[in-house]
Amino acid sequence: MSLFDTHQPLLDGALKAVASRQYWSPFPELPSPKVYGETAAADGQAAVMALTGKNYPLQQPGERARVAPERSPYGVTLDIRYPQCDPAALIAAAQVAEPAWTALGPHGRIGVLLEALVRIHRRSHEIAHAVMLTTGQGPMMAFQAGGPHAQERALEAIAYAWKAMTDVPAQARWEKPQGKKPPAVLIKHFEIIGRGIGLVIGCATFPTWNTYPGLFATLATGNPAIVKPHPNAILPAALTVSILRDVLSEQGLDPNVVTLAATVDPAVTQTLATHPAVASIDFTGGNVFGQWLLAHAKQARVYAEMAGVNTIVIESTDHYAAMLRNIAFSLSLYSGQMCTTTQNILVPRQGIQTDQGHKTFAQVGHDLAAAIETWLADPKVATAVLGAVGSPDTLARIEAASKVGTTILAAKPLVHPDYPQAHVRTPTVIALEQADSAVYAHECFGPVSYLVATSSRDDAALLAQSLICEHGAMTLGVYSIDAHYIEQMISVSRRARVALSINLTQDVYVNQSASFSDYHGTGGNPSANASYTHLAFVADRFVIVQRREHV
Amino acid sequence: MSLFDTHQPLLDGALKAVASRQYWSPFPELPSPKVYGETAAADGQAAVMALTGKNYPLQQPGERARVAPERSPYGVTLDIRYPQCDPAALIAAAQVAEPAWTALGPHGRIGVLLEALVRIHRRSHEIAHAVMLTTGQGPMMAFQAGGPHAQERALEAIAYAWKAMTDVPAQARWEKPQGKKPPAVLIKHFEIIGRGIGLVIGCATFPTWNTYPGLFATLATGNPAIVKPHPNAILPAALTVSILRDVLSEQGLDPNVVTLAATVDPAVTQTLATHPAVASIDFTGGNVFGQWLLAHAKQARVYAEMAGVNTIVIESTDHYAAMLRNIAFSLSLYSGQMCTTTQNILVPRQGIQTDQGHKTFAQVGHDLAAAIETWLADPKVATAVLGAVGSPDTLARIEAASKVGTTILAAKPLVHPDYPQAHVRTPTVIALEQADSAVYAHECFGPVSYLVATSSRDDAALLAQSLICEHGAMTLGVYSIDAHYIEQMISVSRRARVALSINLTQDVYVNQSASFSDYHGTGGNPSANASYTHLAFVADRFVIVQRREHV
Repeated sequence: MSLFDTHQPLLDGALKAVASRQYWSPFPELPSPKVYGETAAADGQAAVMALTGKNYPLQQPGERARVAPERSPYGVTLDIRYPQCDPAALIAAAQVAEPAWTALGPHGRIGVLLEALVRIHRRSHEIAHAVMLTTGQGPMMAFQAGGPHAQERALEAIAYAWKAMTDVPAQARWEKPQGKKPPAVLIKHFEIIGRGIGLVIGCATFPTWNTYPGLFATLATGNPAIVKPHPNAILPAALTVSILRDVLSEQGLDPNVVTLAATVDPAVTQTLATHPAVASIDFTGGNVFGQWLLAHAKQARVYAEMAGVNTIVIESTDHYAAMLRNIAFSLSLYSGQMCTTTQNILVPRQGIQTDQGHKTFAQVGHDLAAAIETWLADPKVATAVLGAVGSPDTLARIEAASKVGTTILAAKPLVHPDYPQAHVRTPTVIALEQADSAVYAHECFGPVSYLVATSSRDDAALLAQSLICEHGAMTLGVYSIDAHYIEQMISVSRRARVALSINLTQDVYVNQSASFSDYHGTGGNPSANASYTHLAFVADRFVIVQRREHV
Repeated sequence: MSLFDTHQPLLDGALKAVASRQYWSPFPELPSPKVYGETAAADGQAAVMALTGKNYPLQQPGERARVAPERSPYGVTLDIRYPQCDPAALIAAAQVAEPAWTALGPHGRIGVLLEALVRIHRRSHEIAHAVMLTTGQGPMMAFQAGGPHAQERALEAIAYAWKAMTDVPAQARWEKPQGKKPPAVLIKHFEIIGRGIGLVIGCATFPTWNTYPGLFATLATGNPAIVKPHPNAILPAALTVSILRDVLSEQGLDPNVVTLAATVDPAVTQTLATHPAVASIDFTGGNVFGQWLLAHAKQARVYAEMAGVNTIVIESTDHYAAMLRNIAFSLSLYSGQMCTTTQNILVPRQGIQTDQGHKTFAQVGHDLAAAIETWLADPKVATAVLGAVGSPDTLARIEAASKVGTTILAAKPLVHPDYPQAHVRTPTVIALEQADSAVYAHECFGPVSYLVATSSRDDAALLAQSLICEHGAMTLGVYSIDAHYIEQMISVSRRARVALSINLTQDVYVNQSASFSDYHGTGGNPSANASYTHLAFVADRFVIVQRREHV
């Protein structure tokens, strides 16, 4: 039984799910011992700890040195030493591996990738622990987002790649009538050929969730891939690359179809990104390097997710307490270090109408602060939800944020019960005026939100639109009991080309994006030029090379 | 009955055809009076001539002047005066028109476009005559390529746009189990929203065939379009734009969904191309402006078809005479002014094996020249096949070409029986050495071909590969009776990402690309970054904007 046949039910499930975009989850998100095994969590943690202080077991061409740049936000010493390879050697190895990977065809490649994905899934606890330690995510988020949810995004990308590739018939008999003459007959073959090496550049916060879609899309469509993880979150990528290479080797394929480009030297990344053989780049990260890529990696198609200013507009609500609880949780989750977390909360200066009566702008701020404090009252819950702050830059931004506007809620350091060296901070909320766009019109990545007083509800809508059109956003939220106002915000979402969440007051949060159902990013505003996942994310990663001849 | 319902059989036929990529032709390519009407040809010609010497009937915003830059290669005085409009006014008008065009949705838009396409079809003779007079094509090619074949490429683009858009469900009920709690339920809506204005820049030689795919793809996916025709081939685009605007107006839509940007000022085109509201550019033309667009129109996705060095490798043949006849015709057709015409014919220096015995390199050249002369022996046939040379630049290139290498066949001026002022030239064939890459490695657009002596057959294959990888090609041909060699050339076609025609000796020519079956360009070598048509040509022209709320 081929790998494709073995895993076809998984592919079929994904194809069915993306056709309806209803709820579907092949990889359980709860780390239940019944599902994952009684000792799975402990085994996964032990497997990660067994890698610390050693050379990571990966042999690749062109190794020049070993590097161990990861500094865990939890203060855990990792010292895992990854090979730093000559970029030219990685490129050359990928080019050698490419023809056989192409020749394997869609069935063969997707069989290999699904087998690898299933193995990645089995090692969810290990990868989750690697994600947690390198990113600072809380354990539950690290498991869900770093494990099953990331795997589902991978499967979604594979499913779309399959759709796009199978849309092309493998061959055709073309028979053109020619009046009284016999018809002209040609046999035509159509082959899917990758565009060339795909470079996948990961981020520090979601090293699997934001890496898998591009990685699996580029591989599925016939391209070799070089994975360049963020220097602080290499391990999750390394484990993923190792599993892929194992499956490739077992199948008699060249493992250099996928390599890891661990490096602390930006010049290495730039060399890879601008190499003529690199045909696509998947990038998640900041604007500075994202814009550098778009300007300099002209030979490649760049699929980029960058900074944005996610926004919620509060116009009115009939679920005031539930609204605040919902927003409070979404701001706290992983200390706002998600590309989907709200930064700007726009509220008309004259206050809002609620089921608890009229609330002034100041009262909304006060109540939001209280809602956040309520969520985080229990230090155990607080540290689990907040996780640790990933980078010194984010700590500096938290510090700087309190120096502008009116602080409604100040960041508070918390001591993590299990990781005393972890940098844990509660969210900061700052009140600003609409005129303070110099502050709120730029991304302040991390647990900092701005409550912005707008002149009117219409101004709030217009401001949301112009902010997102100019600076981008992955998410937009609105709270309103007025159907006309919601229509107005739907128009804003169309013009700003941003996903809109309306009146979220239950167990779904604006920063959550469900695989197979929610499109992550639209690709139509400055925060991202691509979306997880629809056909546009996969269809241009390959070309169709035809040949034709008479019968 | 809606326009969509009326024309659904046409769409369904196209969808069926592109699924199999077998032969299909909804628009008859023969200009038979039985199909098109007894007086259709004369009526079409009369309709074009009635436009000459007048203001073209088109009222658009921001008209600043009238321009009449067209100079017919046939020497016919056109003096048709088109509005030259302020680019800012065209952009503003497109932006005003956009929301209603978006709101119409895929069904509504495709109904409008199919109605326009059917009307364009009914006016095939008129558009064909406009194509003939502006481009210099012979009447049969102008009818086929400018009429039905271009219309079929439009329909193909519409069909793929439909596929990509309908791949996105309009809405979903997302119901996530939550253990003992009631499920979380969200209603999600997914809307297709265009990326913004599409600028479609036409070429001088195929003003409909190369304009329609981008134009109809961008419109179908929810974008307004501005058509910027080549200054020498405005009329075919103007007629097309007029028909589209008529249908839009009749449907109560803003006709400025499509406007014509006729201009002789490159600055106008550059202003349009770099405007922030222009989200996509479809371009067919030379490398200089193509590369300018790729470098400067950074806000837009550029779909470009540019120069290339189309190549045939002759290794051996068992149909020597038929091979020469086939190549001779393909070189003569429209005086080689097709983006798919062969420029370089690579032949091993030691000659080739044929059904007529061994042929030396010199003999192949001699026999190819004779085959061309045979095709063009009858001046009536010759002028019909050759058409007229479109531009003074091409005449200059013909002149210059004879100054290098060994002339095997010299260009001969012919007098056109109906258009005595037409510039008609028979093809030039020049013999070169493999070392002469300074000559043959660049496109010499027009009726100039190089017969290049390579050191060996393997060298011919390698040269074809490196030429196409570096300089691009829309087409590659091979003649060989050796299955191994054909395999070698198939590998070349994969590496150079170019369509391959094998042993064409009958009534199909390497420069022909059939709608619904042949992919025109792969998008994977320097001659083009996109292909007519598969999903990649349409899927990134729109984004998906979702909204979600609890039930």
